[in-house]
Amino acid sequence: MLVNTARFRSRLAEERLDGIVAATSENVHYLTGIASVSLAIHPYFGQGYAVATAEAPEAPRYVCSVGEVDQVLDGFERIAGVETCGTFFREVPEGTALTDDERRLHDLSVVRPAHKTPVDALAAAIKAAGLAHARVGLDTDGLKPGVREQLAALLPTATFVDASKTLAFVRRVKTAEEIRRIRRSAAAAESAILAAASIMEEGVTERELMLAFNRAIASQGGWPRLAMIRIGRNGVGGQILPGATRLSKGDTVWFDVGCVKDGYWSDIARNVAFGEPSARNNAIYAALKAGEDEAIRSVRPGQLAHEVFDMMMDATRNAGLPGYRRHHVGHGIGAEIYEQPILAPGNETPIEAGMVLNVETPYYAFGIGGLHVEDPFVVGEAGDNTLLTTLTRDMILIEP
Amino acid sequence: MLVNTARFRSRLAEERLDGIVAATSENVHYLTGIASVSLAIHPYFGQGYAVATAEAPEAPRYVCSVGEVDQVLDGFERIAGVETCGTFFREVPEGTALTDDERRLHDLSVVRPAHKTPVDALAAAIKAAGLAHARVGLDTDGLKPGVREQLAALLPTATFVDASKTLAFVRRVKTAEEIRRIRRSAAAAESAILAAASIMEEGVTERELMLAFNRAIASQGGWPRLAMIRIGRNGVGGQILPGATRLSKGDTVWFDVGCVKDGYWSDIARNVAFGEPSARNNAIYAALKAGEDEAIRSVRPGQLAHEVFDMMMDATRNAGLPGYRRHHVGHGIGAEIYEQPILAPGNETPIEAGMVLNVETPYYAFGIGGLHVEDPFVVGEAGDNTLLTTLTRDMILIEP
Repeated sequence: MLVNTARFRSRLAEERLDGIVAATSENVHYLTGIASVSLAIHPYFGQGYAVATAEAPEAPRYVCSVGEVDQVLDGFERIAGVETCGTFFREVPEGTALTDDERRLHDLSVVRPAHKTPVDALAAAIKAAGLAHARVGLDTDGLKPGVREQLAALLPTATFVDASKTLAFVRRVKTAEEIRRIRRSAAAAESAILAAASIMEEGVTERELMLAFNRAIASQGGWPRLAMIRIGRNGVGGQILPGATRLSKGDTVWFDVGCVKDGYWSDIARNVAFGEPSARNNAIYAALKAGEDEAIRSVRPGQLAHEVFDMMMDATRNAGLPGYRRHHVGHGIGAEIYEQPILAPGNETPIEAGMVLNVETPYYAFGIGGLHVEDPFVVGEAGDNTLLTTLTRDMILIEP
Repeated sequence: MLVNTARFRSRLAEERLDGIVAATSENVHYLTGIASVSLAIHPYFGQGYAVATAEAPEAPRYVCSVGEVDQVLDGFERIAGVETCGTFFREVPEGTALTDDERRLHDLSVVRPAHKTPVDALAAAIKAAGLAHARVGLDTDGLKPGVREQLAALLPTATFVDASKTLAFVRRVKTAEEIRRIRRSAAAAESAILAAASIMEEGVTERELMLAFNRAIASQGGWPRLAMIRIGRNGVGGQILPGATRLSKGDTVWFDVGCVKDGYWSDIARNVAFGEPSARNNAIYAALKAGEDEAIRSVRPGQLAHEVFDMMMDATRNAGLPGYRRHHVGHGIGAEIYEQPILAPGNETPIEAGMVLNVETPYYAFGIGGLHVEDPFVVGEAGDNTLLTTLTRDMILIEP
């Protein structure tokens, strides 16, 4: 189970919601454990839903096409019911003896009638959850055009309200299983940074470093999603695709990289110096790390996001970069790469114990490139913040 | 350049559109060559746009955050203008001499003022394109909630109409560069199938096959996105994640796999037999392949999608599977994995030369698993259909 049940219940009570319909791939996965193939590969027309009541978010109902209903076997144990839609044929040759899993799939896929459309199936799941006359939150971030209107027509006695922010609020404080997954996603990215560093030789290209990084992610069961790797001064344009630039002795290589593993993101930054870095780069990096250190050491529940921003900016400026400028210095991370709180001026989100903050104080400059250290940590109750990475946060030196 | 300019112009003329705003990552990439990082990793709040006039789709305007404006250097040469928004700091240490690329980035990122919000920047781009008083299509599939209303308030004399379908219609007939990319994406998937087959030994797990497949994709510069690989009878539940099931002599392994490479999808299916497959599996596979063969050989411009469906179903049934049932037998493919035409009953989309059809006649059965061959081909003008894969379409045999 991934869901923070206590926080789910109390938040829905606060918003007077009797239940919620999850519609984004992240929110459906959060409640059911199912990574919908349709939502992953068909962003503009794929449909799949989870319906959870305020009382029992750990026992949601799942809605999908009959073609994808096999994914229920990958879901959490306590899925309370499944409604399907559409057409898909799984044949049963005469005389086939079914295994237990096959019997379950056969029941879901062949025996049970499917609804005509995804919204018909969703309406049936809402009814089955006892929410036909209730106040139901809709995960509008994931709703395709027209779905809300169709649903309102099918369930005229239900009241629907926007609730993507409700789910985001619940997800903001992580459960133990989520923290385990974020840690493992980070571990894959850390190991892949070392895999890329391990092929560094005079003349290696940025693109080769990227391929080595993504290959290492894939080898560890992660899904490559972020591989911004740039050599030397190229780092000032960090989003430009890694290209044909070749590594030379004295270059500092910038990594801002990550992956999705078991549904959870990593977003780690490091510099790798190919040969002794310049005194200037060392000094800047040390100041940036002082900003990150300050967050990992000093963030406490009850602070506001903008206070953490000020604290990290001050630490970086006082450590040798008096003119340091930045628009944010980190963000929550989890099923999405950027979650609240964004650590930025004006952001009043209060820090809570159990949040995972991904902190960073990057520096981009023409002629220098990108200097950057970024890591996730869990906010503790009282100063017991827990770093989720194990790779050195110092600049990594590869001897040419 | 990816865009089919002639088709773009004629379609917009037909719909009386003076220009179009692209908003999905696929459509922005199609017009500009830029794979927006923000749209890729922030599906629910990322913004990035391309604005193209009906006359000159090859010279679009690009809209992004100033943090991401470096990506313009990855775009096509004829980007007519750039509008940015937000805050991002790229420092210029005293005495830094800029390269040509850096000078361009410096101009876009440091010199030019950024708009306050993404919609402000988009409105400015629409104005700069001469579309402030025009009829403008909006790519609603990619619009975040509220954007359309904000835009209408900023540009009260423009008329906005839904146009995601317009862009999908244009993209349906591929240009030479798109076909090249689809072919290379398919080649990566074909090679990765062989990479997974090459590690087959008694006792190898499904999960190990998946890791080998995705590693090979990443090694070739593809982004792993689809790795449905199941051993033997497990194939009946194809969307279930590859697990701990071990390979045994006599197993037929089902692959329905692909990737995204340079913005284009592959979606290839094959069976790999670990040891001589059963006569039954061979016979079924032969019938399925006859259905695929029929499409590759006989599809012609002017047919309707549902006629292709009937033709392929007949060929499969006549080749030894008289009871064969299926809800669709393929789909267009390109920047998205499923594009029109979907080859399904009732679909009246006419086949056109230059479409890339990804055809398949899969068979799923309890006790047997998945049997499946799937490939992309280009529809020729008059029978000169071109297959985009080179891997054998017969069942692949690995000797244990």
